[in-house]
Amino acid sequence: MIAAIQEVTGRITPPDEQAALRAVLRLNSLTKPPGSLGRLEELAVRLAGISRDEQPSYGKRMVVVMAADHGVCSEGVSAFPQEVTIQMAYNFLNGGAAVNVLARQGDAEVRFVDIGINGDIAHPQLIDRKVRRGTDNMAAGPAMSREEAMRAVLVGIQVAQEAVQDGAELLITGEMGIGNTTASAAVLCALEGIPAEAAAGRGTGIGDERLQHKITVIERALEVNAPNPADPIDVLSKVGGLEIAGLAGLIIGAAALRIPVILDGFISGAAALVAKALAPESTAYMIASHVSGEQGHKLMLDRLGHTALLDLGLRLGEGTGGALCLHFIDAVSRIMREMATFESAGVSASESV
Amino acid sequence: MIAAIQEVTGRITPPDEQAALRAVLRLNSLTKPPGSLGRLEELAVRLAGISRDEQPSYGKRMVVVMAADHGVCSEGVSAFPQEVTIQMAYNFLNGGAAVNVLARQGDAEVRFVDIGINGDIAHPQLIDRKVRRGTDNMAAGPAMSREEAMRAVLVGIQVAQEAVQDGAELLITGEMGIGNTTASAAVLCALEGIPAEAAAGRGTGIGDERLQHKITVIERALEVNAPNPADPIDVLSKVGGLEIAGLAGLIIGAAALRIPVILDGFISGAAALVAKALAPESTAYMIASHVSGEQGHKLMLDRLGHTALLDLGLRLGEGTGGALCLHFIDAVSRIMREMATFESAGVSASESV
Repeated sequence: MIAAIQEVTGRITPPDEQAALRAVLRLNSLTKPPGSLGRLEELAVRLAGISRDEQPSYGKRMVVVMAADHGVCSEGVSAFPQEVTIQMAYNFLNGGAAVNVLARQGDAEVRFVDIGINGDIAHPQLIDRKVRRGTDNMAAGPAMSREEAMRAVLVGIQVAQEAVQDGAELLITGEMGIGNTTASAAVLCALEGIPAEAAAGRGTGIGDERLQHKITVIERALEVNAPNPADPIDVLSKVGGLEIAGLAGLIIGAAALRIPVILDGFISGAAALVAKALAPESTAYMIASHVSGEQGHKLMLDRLGHTALLDLGLRLGEGTGGALCLHFIDAVSRIMREMATFESAGVSASESV
Repeated sequence: MIAAIQEVTGRITPPDEQAALRAVLRLNSLTKPPGSLGRLEELAVRLAGISRDEQPSYGKRMVVVMAADHGVCSEGVSAFPQEVTIQMAYNFLNGGAAVNVLARQGDAEVRFVDIGINGDIAHPQLIDRKVRRGTDNMAAGPAMSREEAMRAVLVGIQVAQEAVQDGAELLITGEMGIGNTTASAAVLCALEGIPAEAAAGRGTGIGDERLQHKITVIERALEVNAPNPADPIDVLSKVGGLEIAGLAGLIIGAAALRIPVILDGFISGAAALVAKALAPESTAYMIASHVSGEQGHKLMLDRLGHTALLDLGLRLGEGTGGALCLHFIDAVSRIMREMATFESAGVSASESV
């Protein structure tokens, strides 16, 4: 199964430097001081390289929400009971969650994938790719088997491929799973050698006491399982989650197809670290939408070599920050296509400074 | 004339605390952990108070671009020649400038007001409210008379009133004027007692040597004119600009009509400081869209008591950051209207933490 994953990672190539250069030239021809659109100009150049087009536009975009449960919930690490994962699944499928609202605003489709919810869902919109019914409690042993972790990564790769077959030109990572900030923090610790107290945050809103407990649980999970930092599948299987593995696969799958993938928050960041460990070139296809209120997310982005576009203190996940970021993607597309040039508008360029 | 301005500032009342409270209750009923939408939730509460509606939406919105010239250009403070103001005026009027593109994206109208361009423009879309043909060189004496400064403020108030009569429910400040970062920095220094070297920035992109020169020019303007920090009209007339005065009036006019006004960058910030000096209550109606790459802008926002939503290193002005921010205004409107509640979706709320 690792061969199937490696076949995909082997197809990831660097962005197109010529298209990126053409984007720089176009930006400098537009009626504005050079560089004055700041981070939007950087985004324009990156998107040009990824999409091999200095005036890219993204017609069809999808938020892929991967949902799964976490055995570590039995340790009492979350403010919400585990049943909320399945309750929220219906909310996503019925279009009432925050990401549904923001995706509609951004003209994006939401695909909801059950990759490991601990229960049964019946809904016509559900994409059922359940690998298993939630993970086991990582504080007492491995979250899942090595084979299950690889299967979950392959689910993500396949979902990316299907999305692109269905016309998607841009993907956004989303997730739902009570307990998944605990697993994501553990993945950050295991892959990057970061202490649990620097990685763990308040998730859906736990207080000081439960945060201390969460840190202890993560430390125990790392001690019990001793995940190998050089082996991302080992890390996933021991202290990860099914949606984290699935999103890592989604990112790799998108990168192999030269599709930009907008990262949402902390759980997406953990998946991106796994994707980077499996395929370092995949980072070139990631757009960091926002840095979340979840402590540890900034550390993740630093390790990925990305700076977030937004810093709004979001800590909801689901893909909400990613969906908000679509506006900047579209802004860049429009700027590259619709702005007048100095020549077309008859405006004098700047003097030498 | 000051009586006409005071008549307007006297009509500014605080936002509606009851509507703000209803917004808090609604936010906490939605299917997300309390507070997890971060700054968007703060924005939702502020907009509710301003618009007296916990589910506000803003159908018609306008970017008002005030354009004027600056006599201080003769000191060589900008990377662009003064003719660019008039060349860019046509670019705005023909829809080719960055703010036109971003306003179209945000479904906003752009109104272009000549409040003091040093030249003649003929265009059917032009709103001609020229107070005078550019300011005088503030490094050699007052930029304009006290009477002209007040007339420019009144122009802004009137433009706000007309916009609202025409259906605008939200305004965005925009501007164009070669040399206006120099005047804005001088206004910041004069009103807030900040040294020129902390207030002045690179504007459209000047190098180290010209930046030093710009600082010297600002210091000279402050010394020659000795503007009275307790008298915002004196500051405007001595070291301000016609578009800065006009935008200050626009902000006051909007606040008096209980209309939120999105602030763009550095020049808008100078206008907002003047508005605050004229009417401290007006700050409650300001939304800080972004903190620009222009040094001194953060200082302005601190003095206004606002934190920007975006930090993208924009330093273009025009209203571009303000127009980008419309997406967050709309996101908030949609969240308040479209998200499911815990009750409607049958989702369990969080346990006590």
